[in-house]
This record gives sequence, structure tokens and C-alpha cells, in this order.
Amino acid sequence: MLIQIEPNSKVAVSDQIYDQLSNKIRSKLLPAGEQLPSLRSLAKKLNVSFITVNKAYKKLEKEKLVYIKHGKGVFVGGKSSEKYEMDSPYDWQHNIAHSLVKKPFLLKLKPSRYPLSHSVVHHGLIPTAYIADQMDTMLQKNREILAIYSPIQGDDHLRHEISTYLYKQSRLKVDPQDMIITSGTQQAIEIITKTFIRYGDTVITQSPTYATSIDVFLNQGANVVSAASDEQGMILEQLEKLCIKLRPKLVYVNPTFQNPTGAVWSIERRMELIRLAEQYHFIIMEDDPTSEIYFDDVPPPPSIKRFDQSGHVIYLKGFSKILAPGVRTGVMVANGPILNLLLTAKTTMDLGTPFLLQKAILPFLSTKRMIDHLEKLRTALQLRRDRVQQIINQTLKVEFTYHTVSGGLNLWLALPEWLNTDELLHQTMQEGISFLPGSVCYPNEREYNHLRISFSILSEKDMDYAVQRLCELINEHASAKL
Amino acid sequence: MLIQIEPNSKVAVSDQIYDQLSNKIRSKLLPAGEQLPSLRSLAKKLNVSFITVNKAYKKLEKEKLVYIKHGKGVFVGGKSSEKYEMDSPYDWQHNIAHSLVKKPFLLKLKPSRYPLSHSVVHHGLIPTAYIADQMDTMLQKNREILAIYSPIQGDDHLRHEISTYLYKQSRLKVDPQDMIITSGTQQAIEIITKTFIRYGDTVITQSPTYATSIDVFLNQGANVVSAASDEQGMILEQLEKLCIKLRPKLVYVNPTFQNPTGAVWSIERRMELIRLAEQYHFIIMEDDPTSEIYFDDVPPPPSIKRFDQSGHVIYLKGFSKILAPGVRTGVMVANGPILNLLLTAKTTMDLGTPFLLQKAILPFLSTKRMIDHLEKLRTALQLRRDRVQQIINQTLKVEFTYHTVSGGLNLWLALPEWLNTDELLHQTMQEGISFLPGSVCYPNEREYNHLRISFSILSEKDMDYAVQRLCELINEHASAKL
Repeated sequence: MLIQIEPNSKVAVSDQIYDQLSNKIRSKLLPAGEQLPSLRSLAKKLNVSFITVNKAYKKLEKEKLVYIKHGKGVFVGGKSSEKYEMDSPYDWQHNIAHSLVKKPFLLKLKPSRYPLSHSVVHHGLIPTAYIADQMDTMLQKNREILAIYSPIQGDDHLRHEISTYLYKQSRLKVDPQDMIITSGTQQAIEIITKTFIRYGDTVITQSPTYATSIDVFLNQGANVVSAASDEQGMILEQLEKLCIKLRPKLVYVNPTFQNPTGAVWSIERRMELIRLAEQYHFIIMEDDPTSEIYFDDVPPPPSIKRFDQSGHVIYLKGFSKILAPGVRTGVMVANGPILNLLLTAKTTMDLGTPFLLQKAILPFLSTKRMIDHLEKLRTALQLRRDRVQQIINQTLKVEFTYHTVSGGLNLWLALPEWLNTDELLHQTMQEGISFLPGSVCYPNEREYNHLRISFSILSEKDMDYAVQRLCELINEHASAKL
Repeated sequence: MLIQIEPNSKVAVSDQIYDQLSNKIRSKLLPAGEQLPSLRSLAKKLNVSFITVNKAYKKLEKEKLVYIKHGKGVFVGGKSSEKYEMDSPYDWQHNIAHSLVKKPFLLKLKPSRYPLSHSVVHHGLIPTAYIADQMDTMLQKNREILAIYSPIQGDDHLRHEISTYLYKQSRLKVDPQDMIITSGTQQAIEIITKTFIRYGDTVITQSPTYATSIDVFLNQGANVVSAASDEQGMILEQLEKLCIKLRPKLVYVNPTFQNPTGAVWSIERRMELIRLAEQYHFIIMEDDPTSEIYFDDVPPPPSIKRFDQSGHVIYLKGFSKILAPGVRTGVMVANGPILNLLLTAKTTMDLGTPFLLQKAILPFLSTKRMIDHLEKLRTALQLRRDRVQQIINQTLKVEFTYHTVSGGLNLWLALPEWLNTDELLHQTMQEGISFLPGSVCYPNEREYNHLRISFSILSEKDMDYAVQRLCELINEHASAKL
């Protein structure tokens, strides 16, 4: 078990120990029943005082994250659900040092009948038959693509098509030479983090933010700090203060139909973020999975990358959300010498995205059919958003707030502060209904009264039922609390 | 530019600086013309003496890796081929600290007409038409797989099929629960390294070894140390001495038809390696891309994983080499609590291998057709091996040695020590012929007189021509040296 102490940090050493252990335990990376090092051995290993470690352990004990068996030692609390018990031949593995800090929430969420937790488009809204046919036609003509490696940077043809697509779709001019094809946007986030972030480097995110991005940053050893956002985007006065104090390496943003809130940054904030990046020399990672899915025929403002003259923005466009999650192809756009570094990281990661994934979306991307598909998606999802809001308004009996999103796949719902959506999830899962509990979207804050509902993943019938039932369960949960 | 000093290392600090800069420059991660920090500023930054940095710079200068412009500074030598010149808006990026140490050779190798460098099977030897048809049939029945995410650990059905395949093919019993599907073996190497290796940890490899694995280890900050091998595998007395001295976290081996030499470990060495792992608590990463491709109807010894009772072996089976490089699906097998850690790393890396890749190989894997395909592959490649040896024997006029490989895709050729295959490659590339220069396969040693030739990638006609011409070019190169 690895605990890293940053001696120059402003965070007290006992809090550093507490934070790291707490993350490992809460996320179940350290399973229930696992023995922790003794106070003395940990103090010795970290070269800190006994008192410092004791302070961290006491806090963990108070929160019931650990318990003390007298004469035996300190153990992780909770019920054990692990396959491997003590005295197995694998016991030695508990002593392997590793660099992980947090287990992603996704790994803990069991499959459910009604996964409102998943920000994915229902297969009925994806032209799967057409994509499958096009793919077959393409494969019959170019069967050798099954038998060869793709160029590491990605297929030339696909990079040209994406360049055309980005210009047509959002007037973003990108030289195909400045693109790297990735296996989904998650991989791009990992590549960038791996390349630029080392232990103790600061990454700034919005708050709340995309949950699994937090896991990438933490597991790379980053100091993850959040800047609050309002409806216009990140509050940049706050960001500037953090820049002065912490000199971040990376600022991660999702300015259009943000995950999880659905908020859209104003043009002014987009431009101002670039100015700050130029002044404080941080890299902006702009994640754009769903800007095509706008409602009321009002396209969102241009991407931040459109304003980038100095190579501060790495732009990530994923096609999983709008096109084919089972294919998972994305693109990472960077200008300047850092492209070379990112390409090195991509090479060691997988030798390039498999040709089949790249060629699978190629025939569809530049067709009229794709334009029609996006149009249809916008219409269908807007109706679904309205429907979900209607059900919530009619059914939910506790106080709640949400902002009507102008695009994207999700609705972000705030419940009264005395309700805990982590607890609620345990209950709804009994009936096969899942949602994303807000707590996993906050890097630092302890916020427990939000939830994210996908209005995109289920059939309309299932969605109606699941949202209705979810609201009823919230009502019941609230009644029981009162 | 990042240089990390390990104060407790047995390597002198000036050599640490030299090694890291030399790796960055030789691999072109630092481009020609790039300015290095001044002696004084680097000494100050690393908190070491001026004399220490000077010693490293002098050594770099002597090897023409850097040059000094008086009054201007120290610059990386060589001809600039970079797109970005000085005074561009991207100049600030040269000052971003990053964690990369070495650019993979693959990224420097230009595409060529006759890529004998590539350890890949010619598409004519892969039943691409059948795979494409099967894939289409599967997609027509299960079109929704285009529109949904796979479970992160991998498709249940595929894991069961692979379990059956591994047992049938090599009597390896694996519970599907102990598998993680990966996007090729390269990704598995990255996942394991990311999870267990931190700056300064020791990784031991064979020497020579798979080139791009070295890049993964170095870019993660590992201390990469090689143990010599003979025809029976790694020399384990040497490994044990290294274990006592360096306490490695990870030992990377490729025991069957090793890349690049083609050597096969004896059963005794396989079993002894496990014993050492149990004694010194290192993880064995066993890479098995080609054990199915054996010649003369003599299957190789069982995989090391077969002897593993205590979870010390992580076994990697890739299907790129034997089935479909354009699909790139592989599996990572681990027993015990480390599986949970590897799954965490896989999640942050890409949220799971795309469904399409997994389902694409599924219909083919357990068919009689697959067994026939492997049989055909063995016959075809054995004939190709013989053919390449015949051409070499007849054409090459300098002294040379090779061992007749009993399986795999490559031949490892040793030339006289006064020949440098890095230089040779420049010449053969003029005629569109590439090979893998041996130097990139050695983690530490400076070995320049080997080359790896793939007898699998070209059509027979092209292979005959390319190997013949390569031998003639070696003869010419040698004559010019004499």
C-alpha cells in the first residue's frame, strides 16, 4: 500500500495520510477486512511522527472507515465482499506497492435493469443497421484492414474526414496532421495526464465534473482542485486565484452541455480561459462529447479551441456519444511540439487504435445520413428531456431544482440537503433502477444531494417507468427520513 | 524538460543526467536544434554541483549528441526535421515539464515498400473473408453491440470462449473471472506497468527483448535492467543476483518463440522462474503472442502460468499475431487481489475494450476453421523460414550466425561486430527495405550488429526479393567498410 507525502504541500501531513487512505477505502480499492500497517510501522516508513499517523487513523476510525481490534491491529471497516480471503496463496499480493489511489465508481456499480446512470444514447436512436451494412460493404472491399496495423497517429483517410466533419459541424479548422485518433475520449484523457502530470502536480476541474476524469487524475498522483462553476461556466476569478497559488499544469473543462450539469459556457468565459492559459501557462483539456446535440435549433457557442492561437488547448472530440458507443473512436487535437509527446504516449499505450474501429465509423461520418441522424437525435432527445422534466414535476414531492438543459444527454437534479443520494441509490438498486450519485462528480467537496439522470439510454417506455418509479422512491426515502 | 535524480541510486548522478538526456536525444524525443538548459540553471534546478552537470554535458558533446554555440548555449545535435521552428507561437511548450524519457523506434521508422521490420502475418495468410463474413452475420443478429458499452472486464461470452481456447490450445485452465480483455497486449503491458511501477522501481527484462516494452518501462520512470539469456531462456543465476541486489518489482519475459530471438525457454527454467518469484516477491509478466505457431509438429513447453500456484504470473495472450492485427484483442490473466487493481487501471485507461473488437473475433475463435487456420499458418511460416534461411545462406558474403527458430514470425541475424545495423538501415531504406535494427531491443547494452527479419509480413514473392536485396546491400555495406 502506497502513501505519498508531499513535504512542501500546504495540506497538513496527517491530512495527506487521511485523504489518501480515505480515498482508497471509500472507493473500495482497499477491501473491507484488509489490515492496515500499524501506527509505528507506518510512521517509520513515511518518516513522520507517531502522533501524525495517529491523528489520521483516529479520523478514519471516527468515520467508521477503519476499526481497531485490540492486540491485532487496524482493519478496513465494512462488510467484506471480496473473493479472496486471508490465508490464501495470494496473501503476499497485499504487500505489493502500487500507485493507485481510487477505484472508479463505475466498477462498483452493478448492472441494473434501468441504468439511468449511463450517459449513452439508446440503440434505437442509433442507425445501427445502416452502420453495420456500411461496415460490411467497406470490409468486403478492404478486407486486408483486418490483417494490418493502423498508422499510430490514425488512419489518414479518417483524419481527413474528421477534419471535414469538424469544419462543417462547428467551423473548427483542424489540420489532419495535428490529430491523433484515440480509442474513445477516456483514452485521450489518460494519455494527456500520463504525459504531463507527475505526483503533486495540480489539475483544476470544474465542480462538479465528469467522474471518471477525477479517477484518472488522482491515480496519476495529481493534486485535484476544483473551481466552482455557475451557469456561464467556470468562475474564472476563482480560477485565477488558484493559478497564482497553485500553478496548475492542466485545467480540464467540458464547456458545452457539461457532464453532469448540462451547463454551457458563455463565449466570454471561453475566450477569457485562453487568456489565463497564456498568462499562467497551463494546458486546457477541452472535452467535447455532445456539442452536436443541441435543442431548440440553437447551436452552442464555438469550441474553446476555435479561439486558440498559441497551442494551449488540447481538444477532444469523441464519437461514442453521438454515433456508436460500441465502436468508441475519438480524436485528440493539439498544435505545436506537444503533439509529438502525445504521440509517444499513445504508442506505448496501444501501438495505435485498431484499424477496424477507425474504418467502422468512416463510411458514415461524412454522409447526408449522418446529418439526418444528428437532426433526429436532437429532436428525439429534446422530447425525452421534456418528458423527464414533466414526470419529475408531477411526481416528486420533496423540494428540488434543476436547470432545463439546452442539449446533451442528462438532467442534473438537486434534492434537499438532508437527503443523501448515495443512500438512495442502495434503495433504488433493489428495484433495478440506477442513477449517478452526485458525490462522485465532486473532486473535493462533500456533496451528497444531487443525482444525474440520463434521459437518453432507455426506451421511452422504460424511461417513463424508471423515472416515475425513481421519483416515488425518492418520496418514500424522504418520508422515512422525516 | 524533466530530469529525475535518484539520490540513493548506485548510478553516479552525472551518469543519471547523461543517461536520461541521451535517451531523449537518441530517440528524437528532444528534436535537433532544441536548446538545453544552461549548466548553471540545470545544476541549480537539480540541486547538484556545476561539475556534475558539466561531466554529463561533456560526455554528450563528445558523442555529438549536443553542441555548444559560444555565447548562445547548448543545443541538441543532428539535422532538424521538426515542423515547428523557433519563434513560433508554440515556443512556450518547450518549457512544459513532462514525464517521457524515450520516443519509441516505431515512431521514427518511415513506412516502406518492404517492411521486413514488422512482426505481422501477411494478410493472405489470414482468413479475412471468412472473419468479415462471420462478423457481418454476428452484427446483423446483434446490431445493438454497436450502440452499447462492453462490461469493463470484457464480454462474458468472449472470456468464456478464450478460456476454452486456452485449455484446448495449451492446457491452461483459466477462470473467465480472472481475465481482463485488453486492446492488444501492448495495452496490457502499459496497464501492469502503470499499476505497479513508480520512478526508480526496477524492471528486469531479457536481453535482447521486445523493443516497445522497454519504452513503456522507461517512460514510467523504471530502472530497466537486463538479464542475459541463452538458448534455454533467461540465465536465472544472473537473475537471482540481480534480485538480491535490486529487488525488482517486475520481470518481463516472452518464453516461447521470444521476440526478437525466437528462443524457447526450457521447462526447468520456467519452473525455476516461479520459484524465484515466490522467494523474491516479484511479478512475472509472461507475454505469449505466438506460442501457437510452432514448426515440425512439435508444440512448445507449457506456459509459465501453468506452473503458477501463488498468483505471481500475469499471463498475456494476444490475438493480433495469429488472428487479426486490425482487430487487436488480447487478454490479461491474473489471480488474486491484484486483478482488482488491474481492472481499476483498465477502467481509467479506456472504460473497457470496445464491444466491436471483442465480438469481431468471437465467432471465429472456437471453430474448426480456427484450428485449420493455425495448422495452415504453421506450415506456411515454416516454409517461409526455410526459404529466408536459404536465401541468406546463399547470398550473404560476410560472417553471420542465426539459430533456426522452431516457431514464431522472425529470424534474428548476427553480423560481424564491425557492422552497424543502424547505419545499414539508412541505406536499405533508400530502396524501401526496412528491418528491425537490433540496437532497439537492448535495454542497456550497446549492441549494433544484429537485425530482426520478419519472414511473415510480405507476400512470398516480395519476401524473396526483399531478403535477397537486403543481403546484397549488407554485402555492399560491408565492402565499403573494408
